[in-house]
Amino acid sequence: MNAAPAFDQRFQETFLELLRWRRDVRHFRADPIAPEIVEELVLGASLAPSVGYSQPWRFVSVESAERRAAIAANFERCNAHALDSYEDERRAGYARLKLAGLREAPVHLAAFCDEAGEAGSGLGRATMPRTLEYSVAGAICTLWLLARARGIGVGWVSILDAKEAAQTLDVPAGWTLIAYLCIGYPLEDNVTPELARADWQAPIDEARRVYKR
Amino acid sequence: MNAAPAFDQRFQETFLELLRWRRDVRHFRADPIAPEIVEELVLGASLAPSVGYSQPWRFVSVESAERRAAIAANFERCNAHALDSYEDERRAGYARLKLAGLREAPVHLAAFCDEAGEAGSGLGRATMPRTLEYSVAGAICTLWLLARARGIGVGWVSILDAKEAAQTLDVPAGWTLIAYLCIGYPLEDNVTPELARADWQAPIDEARRVYKR
Repeated sequence: MNAAPAFDQRFQETFLELLRWRRDVRHFRADPIAPEIVEELVLGASLAPSVGYSQPWRFVSVESAERRAAIAANFERCNAHALDSYEDERRAGYARLKLAGLREAPVHLAAFCDEAGEAGSGLGRATMPRTLEYSVAGAICTLWLLARARGIGVGWVSILDAKEAAQTLDVPAGWTLIAYLCIGYPLEDNVTPELARADWQAPIDEARRVYKR
Repeated sequence: MNAAPAFDQRFQETFLELLRWRRDVRHFRADPIAPEIVEELVLGASLAPSVGYSQPWRFVSVESAERRAAIAANFERCNAHALDSYEDERRAGYARLKLAGLREAPVHLAAFCDEAGEAGSGLGRATMPRTLEYSVAGAICTLWLLARARGIGVGWVSILDAKEAAQTLDVPAGWTLIAYLCIGYPLEDNVTPELARADWQAPIDEARRVYKR
């Protein structure tokens, strides 16, 4: 097959809408999400680009209550430590933020990078080895958009001791945690990032510029 | 605004088609791409998620012939070195691959991570600092899909000495190269990854599984 479908103007505009409405969600409704939906999201995410076609992402659905509680405790401890690194107004602002929906999200999906996998035979990563991890980041963003297109919200939790989380989840040696995702229907939608609404961080011009050389 | 648009079944299916037809492109037509299109791609990419809303991606359009030649030489050297790491059939297979379209692509876009930027105030990256780089990877994948939706191909070149490339492009201290992108209209479309067609690497089941814990 060597004729790609044309993606028309209307699709392109709707895709931009999807990007605008994708948010990091930390407030979830309790409604469950069917396991088949999670399977479809992972299947779609596996279409993401990967260095040397290494496909290094490994998605783990965390279902055990004990393991979820251990991850939540890991987060609480790391978050308390992070709070201590801020002072004055910034500290008060940080304390007001809700940075994870671990207690409410019906689906917990951990995304790992299989550093020991042989797929791709190392192609493309001799000089830039972290491209393996970047491939996982791309798969996560793909899954995020697929979820949002179905009205499902995703929150990326990074305030975790990654090694401890890998132990908690009893994954194979060589798997590195890239993200811990909370997934569920959002309590509300918003086109503005929560951290912008909370006056933590505004959009910056540097991120929208084309520098020239 | 707190009512996201509904993304209907047809959009969802077309989005999956987009993911399927996104490819790492190394064979480009010479047709130019208007600078406004590159600006629109970067603007769209800036909607990607970022840790603590840090927006750390910096996109650099490489236009100087001298700088492009230096990047191509950097690639050729690193690629020759990579070839030397393979033996026998794998070596012969590697030698047959075309791994970059640096000579033909009308647009060269380098993607950096601004490690020194203050946006986000460090939120979310105390325990997992590479989330800053992962944010750039997400922006790159977003740009890739936006390009593909317009019929434009992207190839991610990682076979480079990243520090030397940063020097070649004379970027601020603290900017780390995440990807060097070749962008242009593809010579042909294909739904199968080039590395799969070349028998370098097939799809793997592990990447499409939902592991359970």
